[in-house]
Amino acid sequence: MTTTQLLETTLRSATKEVVIGHRRPFCLIGERINPTGRKVFQEQLRNGDMSAIERDVAAQVAGGANVLDINMGVPLTDEAELLARAIRMVQSLTDLPICIDSSVVEALEAGLAAYEGRALVNSITAEDERMAEILPLVKKYDAAVIALPNDSDEIPMEPDKRMELVGKIVEVATTEYGIALNDIVIDPLAMPIGADTSTALATLETMRRIRDTHGLNMTCGGSNVSFGMPGRHTIAATFLPIAMSAGLTSAIMDVRTPQIVEAVKAADLVLDHDEWGMSWIAAHRAKQAAAQA
Amino acid sequence: MTTTQLLETTLRSATKEVVIGHRRPFCLIGERINPTGRKVFQEQLRNGDMSAIERDVAAQVAGGANVLDINMGVPLTDEAELLARAIRMVQSLTDLPICIDSSVVEALEAGLAAYEGRALVNSITAEDERMAEILPLVKKYDAAVIALPNDSDEIPMEPDKRMELVGKIVEVATTEYGIALNDIVIDPLAMPIGADTSTALATLETMRRIRDTHGLNMTCGGSNVSFGMPGRHTIAATFLPIAMSAGLTSAIMDVRTPQIVEAVKAADLVLDHDEWGMSWIAAHRAKQAAAQA
Repeated sequence: MTTTQLLETTLRSATKEVVIGHRRPFCLIGERINPTGRKVFQEQLRNGDMSAIERDVAAQVAGGANVLDINMGVPLTDEAELLARAIRMVQSLTDLPICIDSSVVEALEAGLAAYEGRALVNSITAEDERMAEILPLVKKYDAAVIALPNDSDEIPMEPDKRMELVGKIVEVATTEYGIALNDIVIDPLAMPIGADTSTALATLETMRRIRDTHGLNMTCGGSNVSFGMPGRHTIAATFLPIAMSAGLTSAIMDVRTPQIVEAVKAADLVLDHDEWGMSWIAAHRAKQAAAQA
Repeated sequence: MTTTQLLETTLRSATKEVVIGHRRPFCLIGERINPTGRKVFQEQLRNGDMSAIERDVAAQVAGGANVLDINMGVPLTDEAELLARAIRMVQSLTDLPICIDSSVVEALEAGLAAYEGRALVNSITAEDERMAEILPLVKKYDAAVIALPNDSDEIPMEPDKRMELVGKIVEVATTEYGIALNDIVIDPLAMPIGADTSTALATLETMRRIRDTHGLNMTCGGSNVSFGMPGRHTIAATFLPIAMSAGLTSAIMDVRTPQIVEAVKAADLVLDHDEWGMSWIAAHRAKQAAAQA
């Protein structure tokens, strides 16, 4: 049991508010609008064809997404322009808040400028240069930000080292750039278990310590752990509930696979984030009604 | 992180050994050989027809059980005689160790006398009378025993009270009856979440404290949490991995539902109890081969 204050992170679109928090239902951030590993989509984007995004939004809204991640990292394109266009398009299709995802500072800025609401910026690391480039934008546009506890040297595997970098991020972001603690969402670095089966344990310990020490919200790539292994959906559907019990409050994840979404909803029930089980029961009734229709 | 020694519980049939432990793959105890809620089976048992047990053994062995629970609690029968017969029958069908399950002391004794190997006795509570009746049998037959932290007054909901009763059980069993710590398996009382959505949190906290304070092995009824709720398999498949990360090392559970068994195996992988992921990968290959056959 901790006495640390557990924090809440508020995101908004033009009309809808989503709050991420330790005593709330898990926040599902749809990962799909991302050309990584999608050759056809990459080619379409190079040709200015954004029609796939319409389907991706519809499928993720239907799947139960609370926030949509948008990444437009396609080589040999103007990523800033593409990202701004994609954000405007998605905001015309749904009222879900957006997680603006790029490794390119100019793209993040163009995205933030185009976005209506309070975005989540994906992401900074503990590197001073990256914080210096991005945190002033986070502050200027009143956004929240995902921070990864790695630096230029390494992605540390030891929880102690990750906690040290989390401490550095919190210190620098709050004191040097005036970012509120609530607006820092840590990605504790979920790594592929296929490369090292002890890696998830290190991530889970880091999560518990971040919750108990800082009370910060957290997110992670829900598909990372299973990378390279068979039965990926089952691994994700098992890892996420365990991680939720360790303090994970959101994930950038596959929301189009019911097995994974249902596992997260069941974990909300088990962890007492679903009062009276009303959401669980309502979802079951809706499923039954759909099956009979 | 705890410095408590994590204990191992050894069960045996005539020819096979199964070890329950915190650094080992989860121990799946098949719950099916139990007439509770099975009217046809009850009627068959009253008529001396034990043929259903053959199917139950085969299905649970195929499903991946490591141990089989046998309960013969049918009203208006000679439970002791039935249980002894069922145990001999199951031991003729499989080499899995057995969990001898009865609320009737005479039935437990008949079962222990009939059993070849080192059984798990299900169960005692913190009640003095129950311990006085059963623990001498556990000692005499060199068995291990499941202990529930409740007494005649109540099933306590608060982790503090449950821990107090665990402490009492450990003290009495070891000092008064000479039971080894390794042979005490605590059932921290998983209750239906439908009655109170905070109940699983209390159970999970109790599990963590039992692991960290005593290092004892634990079991629970894997189907209890979902009782009365829709989507029971998904709830069990979510609760068990979370409980495993809190220290649960076995469960008396539905091993005939692949969704639940696969979730437990995925949790073994995530929690680093499946070296190199070899069991996970082998199971996936076997599944593929079966699908192609």
